[in-house]
Amino acid sequence: MQMPDPDAAILSRKDAIVERLQEILPPQAVISDPAETRAYECDALTAYKCAPLAAVLPATTEEVAAVLKLCHAEGVPVVPRGAGTSLAGGSLPTADSIILGVSRMTEVLETDYDNRLIRLQTGRTNLSVTGAVEEDGFFYAPDPSSQLACAISGNIAMNSGGAHCLKYGVTTNNLLGVTMVLMDGTVVELGGAHLDAGGLDLLGLVCGSEGQLGVVTEATLRILPKPEGARPVLMGFASSEVAGACVSDIIKAGVLPVAIEFMDRPCIRACESFAKAGYPDCEALLIVEVEGSDAEIDHQLGLIKDIARSHDPVELREAQDADEAGRIWLGRKSAFGAMGQINDYMCLDGTIPVSELPYVLRRTAELAQQYGLEVANVFHAGDGNMHPLILFDANKEGDLEKCEALGADILRLCVEVGGCLTGEHGVGIEKRDLMGDQYAAADLECQMAVKDVFDPAWLLNPAKVFPLAVSEARRGQRLAAE
Amino acid sequence: MQMPDPDAAILSRKDAIVERLQEILPPQAVISDPAETRAYECDALTAYKCAPLAAVLPATTEEVAAVLKLCHAEGVPVVPRGAGTSLAGGSLPTADSIILGVSRMTEVLETDYDNRLIRLQTGRTNLSVTGAVEEDGFFYAPDPSSQLACAISGNIAMNSGGAHCLKYGVTTNNLLGVTMVLMDGTVVELGGAHLDAGGLDLLGLVCGSEGQLGVVTEATLRILPKPEGARPVLMGFASSEVAGACVSDIIKAGVLPVAIEFMDRPCIRACESFAKAGYPDCEALLIVEVEGSDAEIDHQLGLIKDIARSHDPVELREAQDADEAGRIWLGRKSAFGAMGQINDYMCLDGTIPVSELPYVLRRTAELAQQYGLEVANVFHAGDGNMHPLILFDANKEGDLEKCEALGADILRLCVEVGGCLTGEHGVGIEKRDLMGDQYAAADLECQMAVKDVFDPAWLLNPAKVFPLAVSEARRGQRLAAE
Repeated sequence: MQMPDPDAAILSRKDAIVERLQEILPPQAVISDPAETRAYECDALTAYKCAPLAAVLPATTEEVAAVLKLCHAEGVPVVPRGAGTSLAGGSLPTADSIILGVSRMTEVLETDYDNRLIRLQTGRTNLSVTGAVEEDGFFYAPDPSSQLACAISGNIAMNSGGAHCLKYGVTTNNLLGVTMVLMDGTVVELGGAHLDAGGLDLLGLVCGSEGQLGVVTEATLRILPKPEGARPVLMGFASSEVAGACVSDIIKAGVLPVAIEFMDRPCIRACESFAKAGYPDCEALLIVEVEGSDAEIDHQLGLIKDIARSHDPVELREAQDADEAGRIWLGRKSAFGAMGQINDYMCLDGTIPVSELPYVLRRTAELAQQYGLEVANVFHAGDGNMHPLILFDANKEGDLEKCEALGADILRLCVEVGGCLTGEHGVGIEKRDLMGDQYAAADLECQMAVKDVFDPAWLLNPAKVFPLAVSEARRGQRLAAE
Repeated sequence: MQMPDPDAAILSRKDAIVERLQEILPPQAVISDPAETRAYECDALTAYKCAPLAAVLPATTEEVAAVLKLCHAEGVPVVPRGAGTSLAGGSLPTADSIILGVSRMTEVLETDYDNRLIRLQTGRTNLSVTGAVEEDGFFYAPDPSSQLACAISGNIAMNSGGAHCLKYGVTTNNLLGVTMVLMDGTVVELGGAHLDAGGLDLLGLVCGSEGQLGVVTEATLRILPKPEGARPVLMGFASSEVAGACVSDIIKAGVLPVAIEFMDRPCIRACESFAKAGYPDCEALLIVEVEGSDAEIDHQLGLIKDIARSHDPVELREAQDADEAGRIWLGRKSAFGAMGQINDYMCLDGTIPVSELPYVLRRTAELAQQYGLEVANVFHAGDGNMHPLILFDANKEGDLEKCEALGADILRLCVEVGGCLTGEHGVGIEKRDLMGDQYAAADLECQMAVKDVFDPAWLLNPAKVFPLAVSEARRGQRLAAE
């Protein structure tokens, strides 16, 4: 993946820039020693690495504003970073950039059960949002697989989802307001503890904007009362296509489970050997979970199992107790880790209309065969959010490039069937050069013109989201105009 | 409400402009006779009136693009109009503007039950979306009170809600994609039949943008399978505050009804005499509806009635059959018509955190008393979307101005308690000069800079949404720069 040449003038001014940063932040919050900045050279897309000029770890909105104001004045690019769990290279630095990490900003600022909301600093991890309210019977719904580590800032940047988002929606459906610092240091408030916005819905725009528009330092999130109970059912099928058709039928029937998760044979095997979840040995597995009172659960699972039976399942098993339910989920949630023990892999993230599942699974397998690579599938089937894992060998010459090419073909397939390049991982650097496959020039121009408004000099999170050639040209024009 | 002076140069070129419009549209699609353009002089906010220069009624996206391209080249302002049901003056023309009405664009382009979506032209009315799919067991969820008349274009422009949006969300939660024409005639596609967007979420931005960014000609909407059943319960209370507290408790308990509607005594009386719904004679009434199987309904209503009982209701009555349920809803849905038979009224639309309901109701009554006007309340209490109706006499000198001043005070009160100027009616002309009460200068500047991107000459839907002085200055700057 090509990165832009670093700005030599910025590199030569490193010491002066670091000194200025040290004037506005406490000493421990500025990291410039190359041995230490290496900790920020990549995120969870470890195939690409580049250490930043420096990293800063502010603790307050005011400190973030001071850093951005300085970098704006100095023309230094800034790469915002949450917990660094991006699978799309969303927080990959350039050599001439400052990493602005929010990992020290983890405070809960307000919990308000009457209005079902929590206000917090965005460095807080996803799971610890629920942690702050669960004793009082509440939880925060979006649950990315990385929820133990990933930060709310990143969830907002990528509009993250998770297994339980079929029912509860993704981040944008659970985000009420943000405090955001613009590149010039201006602090703006978007949304709040209420429904809707007057005028333009900039909150909706900011959610999923991948650090291109500003740095979100505080967020107001919707919290929900914990359901009375939940129960998963395991379904095994003779082929991925049959499992896909079953998902389609459940959705079409209008039953709304909280989760419909899909795994194919390579994933099933890896997870079973890792987590001993009791998964059957079959081509494709669905985990369908419903919530509510015992009566509601029985009623919904009844309908769902009837649908499953019409697809000749090789296994159909309802969790009998909390322990069994826990093991079923442990298998699914450890899928990425389990696969990682076996192979290097690249995790893709495309969305498709649910009815296209069987076709897309079949075509993906054909494409993989053409490239001579193996693809494992584990994903949120209910909302059509695919996560093909392409297995490769990082130590084998040319394997990464082959993997990238196959990944691009699979994502183009998603677009072709009426889907989208990314569900919840974001475009990052991974998919930026495919944006032209998704969007016409006029559509892309609209997006970039909006970026111009918030970040006229294109200093925020450079070389991401937009095709490199296009965004570099934009940046050049802007610099020339100044 | 002050409107900008019309551009004399445009008025003097009327004949030439109309002739050009007639070249690109069929004869019956261009309306320029002053006797006929008067039909477009106002929307449902009838207090303000101004006939446009002309009105056009294109039938396709291509025709809309041709009209906008022409108006862009000629510097003629364009006011998009759906069904003209805006309560905030969202489609009020200026004398030098062209009304672009989508009322002829009512085609269903695609229904896709596998993926639960419908694609249509946006002139189609809200209720006829459900009409197109209900035989197959589906419906479109957002249900504004004006759903028999209002167009999807207007629903998208205002991000409309309705009584049943507590469970199903408002328009933005049910909108998957749009075809939009920019002011210069460029056609862009945003979103589609899939989850999420690559890059910036312009679809989220466009929803609720009140015709400031472009003209939405086609939309892809989420349709849902009809629930097995639904049942409302009527609750009467001794005061508005007690009813407000009951709403707060239901929400806090985590039960999710599809609707929680609120009416106070003036509304209850008007609706009862109009619809014979069997409403009790009391200070405040709630209609709470839940959906699902009979077992689920019984379970949920059991919890809800327990909460109601803890607030000493003067009436607590579950609908015994479909007929009774129908009458309960008829009363609520005819509230605006019923009030209109008694008085002139202005319908406000603010949102507040649900826990502030009792306080806001009390303060609203106090403010009304100070102004010597009566306020009736009927609104979506579950999501904190208030609709105070200020009663006044349009024929009485000074009464409208008093009504406007009281309305502004009530909306400021909503902002003060952490709410927002508008839930679903939009800012329009009605609330534009209050935007400074909601937003800091930097926040507003962000919004206007985004408007600049889509409509640099500020030709689309002029004198709305942003404070008049500010938007006129913006328009002036842009014109000078050209």
